[in-house]
Amino acid sequence: MIEVRPARPGDGEALLVLIRSLAESHDQGSKVTATAGDIEQALFCPSPLIGCLVAEIDGLMAGSAIWHRSFSSFRGAEVMYLEDLSVLPAFRRRGVARALLRGIARVARARAVPSVHWQMMGWNHEARALYESAGAEIEDGLSSCRIHGAPLRELAE
Amino acid sequence: MIEVRPARPGDGEALLVLIRSLAESHDQGSKVTATAGDIEQALFCPSPLIGCLVAEIDGLMAGSAIWHRSFSSFRGAEVMYLEDLSVLPAFRRRGVARALLRGIARVARARAVPSVHWQMMGWNHEARALYESAGAEIEDGLSSCRIHGAPLRELAE
Repeated sequence: MIEVRPARPGDGEALLVLIRSLAESHDQGSKVTATAGDIEQALFCPSPLIGCLVAEIDGLMAGSAIWHRSFSSFRGAEVMYLEDLSVLPAFRRRGVARALLRGIARVARARAVPSVHWQMMGWNHEARALYESAGAEIEDGLSSCRIHGAPLRELAE
Repeated sequence: MIEVRPARPGDGEALLVLIRSLAESHDQGSKVTATAGDIEQALFCPSPLIGCLVAEIDGLMAGSAIWHRSFSSFRGAEVMYLEDLSVLPAFRRRGVARALLRGIARVARARAVPSVHWQMMGWNHEARALYESAGAEIEDGLSSCRIHGAPLRELAE
């Protein structure tokens, strides 16, 4: 039995394990600098930008879905962005990701947002199959850009 | 001379022209359902999720950059997401996009966010050259997913 519930104070350490697990599966483990305190502060501050569902199996945290508020200029409306969908390797192939996706759809309904967006790596065929079966539209051939640190400071000069 | 300034009430119609122009250049013109009122409401409500810079040449709106608040789970911190960077065809190759990017970097500095993220189509070599020259890191091979309408409602059942 998979139980999906909102994250609560005290989940920070387990969430960090899930964030690290997802990063490592994309060879980006070294990019995780968040602390459990950072995640809890972002989740439980007065007007949070983010939300999180966790999936438990037998009381163990098996997966998590962290989303943040987002905006579609095409719609001119607030939407949701699914930042992380992470399932620990030991709990894969048991429906955890799908249960979390369903939970995210329910959050979208409760918040009355019309659309949920996210990214995946194009090579991730397992994820693609799941998302397509859930009814997602997938557009390939995108590139992700970011600027930070010294280049961001220099650009602002 | 390119002047970059924050959007102000009354800019909605011109912003919608820029949003439509960007959508059409990606063959997605039919997906724009936003109204000028939607954009102005999102920009000028009490706690806006989004912000916008506009670039003017000789008093004419040549381009715009719409960003929204975002969150990086790897950093555990708020970041900025550049939703739209649009330059009208008549004003291209005059440095408008670069001036807007510089303006966005200044907004990031003013907001003390460590990173600005965005997406581009992998085939957009002109955009790539600009972003790389500005110091952005680009990761290729991503796919964009979204679920909305009936599939989103069904997933929530």
